[in-house]
Amino acid sequence: MDGFETLSEQACFGGVQGFYRHASTSCGGPMRFAVYQPPQAVQGKCPVLYYLAGLTCTEETATIKAGAQRLAAQFGLVLVMPDTSPRDTGIEGATGDWEFGEGAGFYVDATQAPYAGRFNMHRYVVEELPALVARHFPVDAARSSIFGHSMGGHGALTIALRHPERYRSVSAFAPIVAPSQVPWGQKALPRYLGDDPAAWADYDACELVRRQTFPGTILVDQGEADKFLEAQLKPELFDQACAEAGQPLLLRRHPGYDHSYWFISTFMEDHLRHHASALGLL
Amino acid sequence: MDGFETLSEQACFGGVQGFYRHASTSCGGPMRFAVYQPPQAVQGKCPVLYYLAGLTCTEETATIKAGAQRLAAQFGLVLVMPDTSPRDTGIEGATGDWEFGEGAGFYVDATQAPYAGRFNMHRYVVEELPALVARHFPVDAARSSIFGHSMGGHGALTIALRHPERYRSVSAFAPIVAPSQVPWGQKALPRYLGDDPAAWADYDACELVRRQTFPGTILVDQGEADKFLEAQLKPELFDQACAEAGQPLLLRRHPGYDHSYWFISTFMEDHLRHHASALGLL
Repeated sequence: MDGFETLSEQACFGGVQGFYRHASTSCGGPMRFAVYQPPQAVQGKCPVLYYLAGLTCTEETATIKAGAQRLAAQFGLVLVMPDTSPRDTGIEGATGDWEFGEGAGFYVDATQAPYAGRFNMHRYVVEELPALVARHFPVDAARSSIFGHSMGGHGALTIALRHPERYRSVSAFAPIVAPSQVPWGQKALPRYLGDDPAAWADYDACELVRRQTFPGTILVDQGEADKFLEAQLKPELFDQACAEAGQPLLLRRHPGYDHSYWFISTFMEDHLRHHASALGLL
Repeated sequence: MDGFETLSEQACFGGVQGFYRHASTSCGGPMRFAVYQPPQAVQGKCPVLYYLAGLTCTEETATIKAGAQRLAAQFGLVLVMPDTSPRDTGIEGATGDWEFGEGAGFYVDATQAPYAGRFNMHRYVVEELPALVARHFPVDAARSSIFGHSMGGHGALTIALRHPERYRSVSAFAPIVAPSQVPWGQKALPRYLGDDPAAWADYDACELVRRQTFPGTILVDQGEADKFLEAQLKPELFDQACAEAGQPLLLRRHPGYDHSYWFISTFMEDHLRHHASALGLL
């Protein structure tokens, strides 16, 4: 019914690292995602942690590079890592630009032609994927958390701030926090959502946190040698927005670290502990 | 003088993950390699662990997929990961076949035309690379160890057995242990070394261990769901050869694990502890 297919499953840290495909209604076509099932999943349902990747990435990127399975196995946490957008859409303008379109879905529900109908990563991540995961994997969906990197950090923050009842915790590596105010967002959001900035606010963490805070401290790590820091990321804007809104935020700045998975893998353990704690696993 | 160039350096687990290139005399052209310098390397020289990768791999493969930096940072261990062969050799027959030639150097010193002069990965790994590393990185070369995967496991075992004075410890993931007796070796060794099997024995761990044992236990991990297990790997041959030679061997067989880096990453910690212990770091 949902076109669910197993592409591969391999033993990893006592559990199973798998890659899967299904027919997505939100995105109007096939979508791929990765799931790591820890050894504890053989015994019963485990909490689930969603990871959203950044520009140019796929379901494989963090699965391969982030080194998250070791601690997921230790804590008993299912990891779900979706692709960053629909693929092979055939839509003109949706390929050939790493900052927009395929691989750059920005976790929005597009309202503008020709992207509406395919580029609906917000409701894909919030609704369709969790329902699919709950049907096919041993997860305790009532215990879910979310995190991500860069564009995926933007996705995690905006999704958690809009749906705080669905997630126990949220964190981000080098997130885009104010897409309405930076070039990446100012390029992508009008194409997906139209020219009225009021529509962009639903996908802007700095705007959202002023409407509704998240129950719990948000963890954000940022490398100070990140080449996107000043023009695209601007964590100080989120720091200020959280302070004004009364949102607890732990923003850590790390000298020498850049935007890469070398940075992410270094601090992955702290993020998994943050989520494992909120999910009652520590 | 040695054409040493830094391609990239990025912060990782408090240390530096770098990629480098140099002009290799052994291999008659440019060679690439990766080095991880742990945080302790800022204070002084650290022991060094060489990792040799398998067929089709490059200096990037294990660097990205194996998850070794975390523990190298903890123990204070420099990791050196070379490419698996010279590249862009322009030699007919050296590309287009994943089992032979570029990406498949088999850690031999070729004696046969047209491969001699370029495919000299044995002396590259044993002599040229350590000398280069000692010139450019803070390593205590007197404390060196070596390990590898598959064809690189074969490389690590044969190199350590031929040069036990150079390495404090050796281990392997799913190594080729008897290339003279399996299709991979029977295809590659004649082309590099000629048709006389006597020349192959210098690069056959099962033959070498009967000549000279290694001082210390050899650690080998093997997945039982490895599709190359029966035809190419045959760890039972090494088990038998070590038993006959009086070589201490810890051969662990892991149900469900395959030949991939999901397997390697799972047991990486055990291998790094094995080497850290031999190198006096535990």
